[in-house]
Amino acid sequence: LLDARPGLAKQLHVSHGASREELDRGLAEAEVLLAGRFEAEAIERRAPRLRWVQSIFAGVEKIVSSVPPTVAITNAGGVHAGKAGEYAIGGILMLNNVIPTMIAQQRQRAWNPVYTSSLKGKGVAILGTGHLGSAVARHCGHFGMVVTGISRLGRAEPGFDRVVRVDELAGVLPGCAFVVVTLPNTPGTRMLLGPTEFGLLPPGAGLVSIGRGQVINEAAMVDALASGRLGGAMLDVLEKEPLPRSSPLWGLPNVVITPHCGVDDPESDLSLALEVFVDNLVRYTDGRPLRNLVDRDAGY
Amino acid sequence: LLDARPGLAKQLHVSHGASREELDRGLAEAEVLLAGRFEAEAIERRAPRLRWVQSIFAGVEKIVSSVPPTVAITNAGGVHAGKAGEYAIGGILMLNNVIPTMIAQQRQRAWNPVYTSSLKGKGVAILGTGHLGSAVARHCGHFGMVVTGISRLGRAEPGFDRVVRVDELAGVLPGCAFVVVTLPNTPGTRMLLGPTEFGLLPPGAGLVSIGRGQVINEAAMVDALASGRLGGAMLDVLEKEPLPRSSPLWGLPNVVITPHCGVDDPESDLSLALEVFVDNLVRYTDGRPLRNLVDRDAGY
Repeated sequence: LLDARPGLAKQLHVSHGASREELDRGLAEAEVLLAGRFEAEAIERRAPRLRWVQSIFAGVEKIVSSVPPTVAITNAGGVHAGKAGEYAIGGILMLNNVIPTMIAQQRQRAWNPVYTSSLKGKGVAILGTGHLGSAVARHCGHFGMVVTGISRLGRAEPGFDRVVRVDELAGVLPGCAFVVVTLPNTPGTRMLLGPTEFGLLPPGAGLVSIGRGQVINEAAMVDALASGRLGGAMLDVLEKEPLPRSSPLWGLPNVVITPHCGVDDPESDLSLALEVFVDNLVRYTDGRPLRNLVDRDAGY
Repeated sequence: LLDARPGLAKQLHVSHGASREELDRGLAEAEVLLAGRFEAEAIERRAPRLRWVQSIFAGVEKIVSSVPPTVAITNAGGVHAGKAGEYAIGGILMLNNVIPTMIAQQRQRAWNPVYTSSLKGKGVAILGTGHLGSAVARHCGHFGMVVTGISRLGRAEPGFDRVVRVDELAGVLPGCAFVVVTLPNTPGTRMLLGPTEFGLLPPGAGLVSIGRGQVINEAAMVDALASGRLGGAMLDVLEKEPLPRSSPLWGLPNVVITPHCGVDDPESDLSLALEVFVDNLVRYTDGRPLRNLVDRDAGY
């Protein structure tokens, strides 16, 4: 990857490690940190020369408050878009074909056909119009769905029939047979979907959750799923992970839970994240703006 | 619908009924029969003036041997393409994301992430390049899969990267992570997939079956699924329907069974079938060739 900029490798001093000790040895001198999960506590003291942290993850909520504002944080946003799009449209297709009901019947060895109509013309609300949301929108459009994006600013984006602001959500939900949550966990997104929102959806609507579980009021979701107000859900992320064994979600027949693995692709995630890093490294040495720079106020 | 040809309605004598007696009363004089399921036994004697049967179904294997060769049979092929395409790609996405495994883990309340790679670049063999197969091919292409069609004649069709003849199937299977069966039940398609074919697929391949169950050697499929040679299957059609309660397929954790309802769309099936009929009625009164004419030798 470093072939992109001949000579760049020679300018670098690289240290690496998997333990706190090894990390701190490198951090003492480091200007740049490329990291996955790491203890960011007191990073200002441990890494006095640090100017930029590149995360290999898309979500950076666990480090954003520990890293001082003078240090740039970039994330690996976009890396998961391919798999996330497949997961979400797969979930919509599965819920539209009432597969959870089919599987429950199968356990009873019961041959009870249930006929459902095509996705064509059905409405979908996609919360978040970033990398993940845009990938989902493109697939929904392929199947002829009517695609509404919901974002902070309500700015039009390719692949969406329209994009509205978060405060316009209530007006959108009654026309949506499906809701897909792709939002990160930020002060502005927490508990965005609760009893009111589930009540506005047409009865039997389907929910797909990627992004972060904190965007959904989980207790309200359980109620809506148990009552049938929500027809079904496919959940890759939850308020608390791992989902506690006591959670009623495990036992709901119209719910499919995947343990935070649906949007990851082991064959491409790391190499795509490293591509973002190397591109940013070239920008950094050139003094040009970094890609995927995290907005501290927005939290992503 | 008859507005398409003003005056046509006046030329018709229409009789209809749901019982054998009502049917036979109309058949005594009828030149044209529009029917769903009906007893075709001795139809030559019961309907001496019959010249054309329009089925509202795509599969006509139950009537083709009873209707004399001088009577044209047309089917409703194409009506199911929209829903069939969604069902099949939904099945592929579900199997690719190991959802049956996820659901089995969910019953144990176990949080065990399983990471899988994207569909992009994976091979799919689609048996049948007609209405159903073409709809499936279009969706597979959308997700960047490498799409091989298998047909009697091996003629190139839009949406397929290549089409090969049935006798070339063995050469195709080793490169296919997924197989979709969309073929009708004819003497040429029965038991096309058996132990040899399952053995040629890469280990863990996924199978989606729409069309007709007789195309698959069901005992061999059970063995392949139980051993893990086949990674999973989504089955809408089976050798014997309803699937007997004693079938081991019901209990296999990597199998999802839908009771012959996956490709039907209650909101559009009948109206689309009637559109085919009326179009054909205009052609019939004009003396032009009928659409969706069943080839007696091919059996579909």
